[in-house]
Amino acid sequence: MLVVMKPNATEAQVDAVVEKIRSLGFSPHAIPGAQRTAIGVTGNKGDLDPALFESFPGVREAIRVSQPFKLVSREVKEEDTVVDVGGVEIGGKRLVIMAGPCSVESKEQVLEAARAVKASGATMLRGGAYKPRTSPYEFQGMAEDGLKLLALAREETGLKVITEAMDVETLPMVADYADMVQIGARNMQNYSLLKQLGKIAKPILLKRGPSATIKEWLMAAEYVVAHGNGRVALCERGIRTFETATRNTLDLNAVPVLKSLTHLPVIVDPSHGIGLRAHVPAMARAAVAAGADGLIIEVHPCPEKALSDGQQSLTPEEFAGLMAQVRVIAGAVGRPV
Amino acid sequence: MLVVMKPNATEAQVDAVVEKIRSLGFSPHAIPGAQRTAIGVTGNKGDLDPALFESFPGVREAIRVSQPFKLVSREVKEEDTVVDVGGVEIGGKRLVIMAGPCSVESKEQVLEAARAVKASGATMLRGGAYKPRTSPYEFQGMAEDGLKLLALAREETGLKVITEAMDVETLPMVADYADMVQIGARNMQNYSLLKQLGKIAKPILLKRGPSATIKEWLMAAEYVVAHGNGRVALCERGIRTFETATRNTLDLNAVPVLKSLTHLPVIVDPSHGIGLRAHVPAMARAAVAAGADGLIIEVHPCPEKALSDGQQSLTPEEFAGLMAQVRVIAGAVGRPV
Amino acid sequence: MLVVMKPNATEAQVDAVVEKIRSLGFSPHAIPGAQRTAIGVTGNKGDLDPALFESFPGVREAIRVSQPFKLVSREVKEEDTVVDVGGVEIGGKRLVIMAGPCSVESKEQVLEAARAVKASGATMLRGGAYKPRTSPYEFQGMAEDGLKLLALAREETGLKVITEAMDVETLPMVADYADMVQIGARNMQNYSLLKQLGKIAKPILLKRGPSATIKEWLMAAEYVVAHGNGRVALCERGIRTFETATRNTLDLNAVPVLKSLTHLPVIVDPSHGIGLRAHVPAMARAAVAAGADGLIIEVHPCPEKALSDGQQSLTPEEFAGLMAQVRVIAGAVGRPV
Amino acid sequence: MLVVMKPNATEAQVDAVVEKIRSLGFSPHAIPGAQRTAIGVTGNKGDLDPALFESFPGVREAIRVSQPFKLVSREVKEEDTVVDVGGVEIGGKRLVIMAGPCSVESKEQVLEAARAVKASGATMLRGGAYKPRTSPYEFQGMAEDGLKLLALAREETGLKVITEAMDVETLPMVADYADMVQIGARNMQNYSLLKQLGKIAKPILLKRGPSATIKEWLMAAEYVVAHGNGRVALCERGIRTFETATRNTLDLNAVPVLKSLTHLPVIVDPSHGIGLRAHVPAMARAAVAAGADGLIIEVHPCPEKALSDGQQSLTPEEFAGLMAQVRVIAGAVGRPV
Repeated sequence: MLVVMKPNATEAQVDAVVEKIRSLGFSPHAIPGAQRTAIGVTGNKGDLDPALFESFPGVREAIRVSQPFKLVSREVKEEDTVVDVGGVEIGGKRLVIMAGPCSVESKEQVLEAARAVKASGATMLRGGAYKPRTSPYEFQGMAEDGLKLLALAREETGLKVITEAMDVETLPMVADYADMVQIGARNMQNYSLLKQLGKIAKPILLKRGPSATIKEWLMAAEYVVAHGNGRVALCERGIRTFETATRNTLDLNAVPVLKSLTHLPVIVDPSHGIGLRAHVPAMARAAVAAGADGLIIEVHPCPEKALSDGQQSLTPEEFAGLMAQVRVIAGAVGRPV
Repeated sequence: MLVVMKPNATEAQVDAVVEKIRSLGFSPHAIPGAQRTAIGVTGNKGDLDPALFESFPGVREAIRVSQPFKLVSREVKEEDTVVDVGGVEIGGKRLVIMAGPCSVESKEQVLEAARAVKASGATMLRGGAYKPRTSPYEFQGMAEDGLKLLALAREETGLKVITEAMDVETLPMVADYADMVQIGARNMQNYSLLKQLGKIAKPILLKRGPSATIKEWLMAAEYVVAHGNGRVALCERGIRTFETATRNTLDLNAVPVLKSLTHLPVIVDPSHGIGLRAHVPAMARAAVAAGADGLIIEVHPCPEKALSDGQQSLTPEEFAGLMAQVRVIAGAVGRPV
Repeated sequence: MLVVMKPNATEAQVDAVVEKIRSLGFSPHAIPGAQRTAIGVTGNKGDLDPALFESFPGVREAIRVSQPFKLVSREVKEEDTVVDVGGVEIGGKRLVIMAGPCSVESKEQVLEAARAVKASGATMLRGGAYKPRTSPYEFQGMAEDGLKLLALAREETGLKVITEAMDVETLPMVADYADMVQIGARNMQNYSLLKQLGKIAKPILLKRGPSATIKEWLMAAEYVVAHGNGRVALCERGIRTFETATRNTLDLNAVPVLKSLTHLPVIVDPSHGIGLRAHVPAMARAAVAAGADGLIIEVHPCPEKALSDGQQSLTPEEFAGLMAQVRVIAGAVGRPV
Repeated sequence: MLVVMKPNATEAQVDAVVEKIRSLGFSPHAIPGAQRTAIGVTGNKGDLDPALFESFPGVREAIRVSQPFKLVSREVKEEDTVVDVGGVEIGGKRLVIMAGPCSVESKEQVLEAARAVKASGATMLRGGAYKPRTSPYEFQGMAEDGLKLLALAREETGLKVITEAMDVETLPMVADYADMVQIGARNMQNYSLLKQLGKIAKPILLKRGPSATIKEWLMAAEYVVAHGNGRVALCERGIRTFETATRNTLDLNAVPVLKSLTHLPVIVDPSHGIGLRAHVPAMARAAVAAGADGLIIEVHPCPEKALSDGQQSLTPEEFAGLMAQVRVIAGAVGRPV
């Protein structure tokens, strides 16, 4: 059960509902948002009657939810959520293309990449300034200098910027520069970070953890939404399996499954997903055919010199070729690029 | 290294090559086929010089192969293999659609299914007469009676029949009735069966084992080809991962990876792959977009009464809807259905 | 529900029970065994009352079973099954040690291995005459010549012989030579073979499939028992996971889980399980501490010359060292070797 | 290559080495520690000659390292690291037992648990005050109030306290109360947190991520050590596989593999690993037999009332029984408790 309060509900009204829930022997979870408070109810075995709560002052509605995720569930909100990123609409009719280098490395690199991906039809620029790396000896990103270069590229090209935040400390700065904040796979269950994401005013791209089930992923999104930020898109980027021929196993099954379970938009990252440059276009096409709302693709002016993920980055020419293929599939499923 | 003998090479010529290989300290693997003998060479650390063998009488060519699979490798044969199934060409320009019930259950059921899938554009009829079932208490198939019904449906509709063989004992009978013999996922590494498949005159659809790597799968195909039957198509049907929201994880990454490694055609089974009726069309579209040469889809006149796999079978109407979607994607990638 | 008939029940009595089950709307599965017929009942949603069947002539008892596996379940038979292999008792108080080479390669090799493992305390000799190999170009075993060498080693040492059967064709011959027939991991769901195993008079060691759940494994054992052979032991040999530091992931969790679900004995194969010679002793110790009824260990007089699995085979000296460690743990858990 | 500077090396001396590495075309990674600076060298294809650096002033030694992890590698430090936790030595001769509730819930609960586990032989008290929970609606821990209760229990019992830190913000407070800081599985690759751990003066227990390879896990430990804190112990707690009969798959293979690759001590958590109360003792015994340096076990005075993980917590009586079994195995492998 989820009890949704009216936007102008008072604290006393919230408290009264909380008390009622307790008196029934269940657990209330009041989650104040920017616009309204919602109160999750857990601990009940069977169905609860919405009438128990809907007569309370300040309550907008009480919704039966059979899933452990509530706010992100299609049961609670049937229509698709469209996440607006400075005018770029993720989850609307148009397919959204995000592209750019894995890491921001230099002014020339990021500007060249930005111009190229824009020319081929991208509307958002990706690029990491803070890089989670398996080894402490690998390039860890340009930090704020990288963010500044992304802002510069935005200024020149008009592309919206998506970049990763790795921790609570740097989140405010990243959110300041970015149009959309990306949360990496290995931070998907960093709950302290997820809670903070609920409090910022920028949309979030939440990548799937490499061994996260779809349900766990939706629970992670629920954290963000429950803490106040409903502008969340999900990004499938490959799961960890026994297969070693590909870097990860891009799980396109997740696309239709998510579409049935949640109203949040779904982006696919074929670059990390399959991890092999030659096969990124095939998986990009497949993702669009499966119903994804957008793609995020690694493009580097010179992949063989990339400081990270060169083996999966496309050249600008390859990206142009991919876009030509994607347009055809997107057209076939009624999604203009 | 693979030494390919001429079709008319004598036994003595083969023996001479085998001796030469042994004298170099390596292991020869002479594999007599219907048309010619090939001799795999293993045990060499570095490259061998083809000239070592090409001067021997009866040798057509000696090919350097860096992969453990040789005959199925694109290194050995660059052009796509087209598997002819009684006039239906798998791996040619047209997308091949195989459809029908999981199990053959009755004359009415199989005829109704056959007419329906033909009407929507399938050219091959699937249906199991021998069923590998997890439990000994589950329906094990109609055996030869089922094969006869498939033959009857072929007679009436002209559809080519694909059906599973489970063991060496029943293989000759299955091969007798079938136009193409399917090998199930759990038999992918049943090497005794694979060797026999090399000796029959019918094409083979080799399903991927639920935890088989792409390389192991190609090695299984190599068994069949090495033992004399080059008419093999591969079928991706989902791998086993930690995800429980879907029955299996359909691994579409395998499609482009296979296309680069092997010349054999690739079929995708979204029905077993995702295992949820509502999501089969999305995965079918994605498979075609990824470059599959065909689809195999479970269709049952009345899925809720199916003796096996009802939860993933489409009704004839749903299949017609799927085909409409598939045609659009197939058209977009230049593959007429 | 499982209805167990008396040993001398007539066909008519079995038919009467089968009819009764049908009349209730459920499915009967009569499984004739060497000594008595059992009839599995499936299709019922809730509990059935045993009294429904126990009044029928020829019925010994009707047992409620909540698991899909019935005959192998501890619900059906509470006391441990002890599998007698020519006097060696698997599942009794003593820990059973099976050891020997991966493949039988020569008379000298198998005799030397047999003498060595006997000297260190093994009571059973392992050794493959038919080898399931990933590649058609690898050594496929010595076939009947290998079986003869195993018999020779038995004659000399008194060790009981366990060796693998790969298919229905060679099963009678293997069963003829062997004291216990091993079914390899990749044949765990070869249902045609499992059914035949039910009809032979030798005990079976059923290895776990590399991606088989514990429940699927028990269902495979159920096939053998349901078809008439109750002398089955299970062998954990590692599952397939994402980890690449070890050959497989030996799943010792399976030991206590199996012990609670089934009355069949449990053997552990640390050699295939971890796949690295240096770490076999640690996993052997752990297996015994976890409650295994025995171990199966690869020992080769000269591992670096082994035709298969040399990297995981112990030398006779290493095996003697392992046995010293195993004895200490076995003593600590009250299981003499 | 790892260049280790002397404790009193000057900044200029470090810079000179860094310059030399750059001039050779490689990448230097200077990592200042509390006591000395180490400089990792990456980018070299083949072996480097230590003599290149050992003649530089301020250099203690230059070590060839073939693994991507350097400081945690046994190649770099052959002898076992013993982590001292206020007198409790992890990695020494004695087996270390950490036990207590999953979450701190009340004064009575934590004191009762502490007394009980001490009575049975534990020397460290576990208990979570900050809880990473899959759902935002679940109990998130008592925060600082919980830490105070742990401190109280330490005061009364003398047990050393291990408790989890979830983020950089609360790390200083947690480190203030705790004797050892635990990093949970889902934070294993939270690199921002790992870097901060390098700067605190408390030992760390680093749990393995649910889908982390052993190599990735060692790289995570390398982050902590490279940033200055060498007092790290590793904790195996189960990996994610396809098996659903157990909560996770406790991977005891990791114990001997880690022991060969790293000098850091290894703790095993059978409670999370198998996740089923009845089977925790079997896995605890197996862990000790495999060579673990200690165990961490969930014990709750009243598991059925636990706010988290009740199904895997032992009662004090069950824990006493487990300890009796563990002592026997520990004695057998020469590790007194």
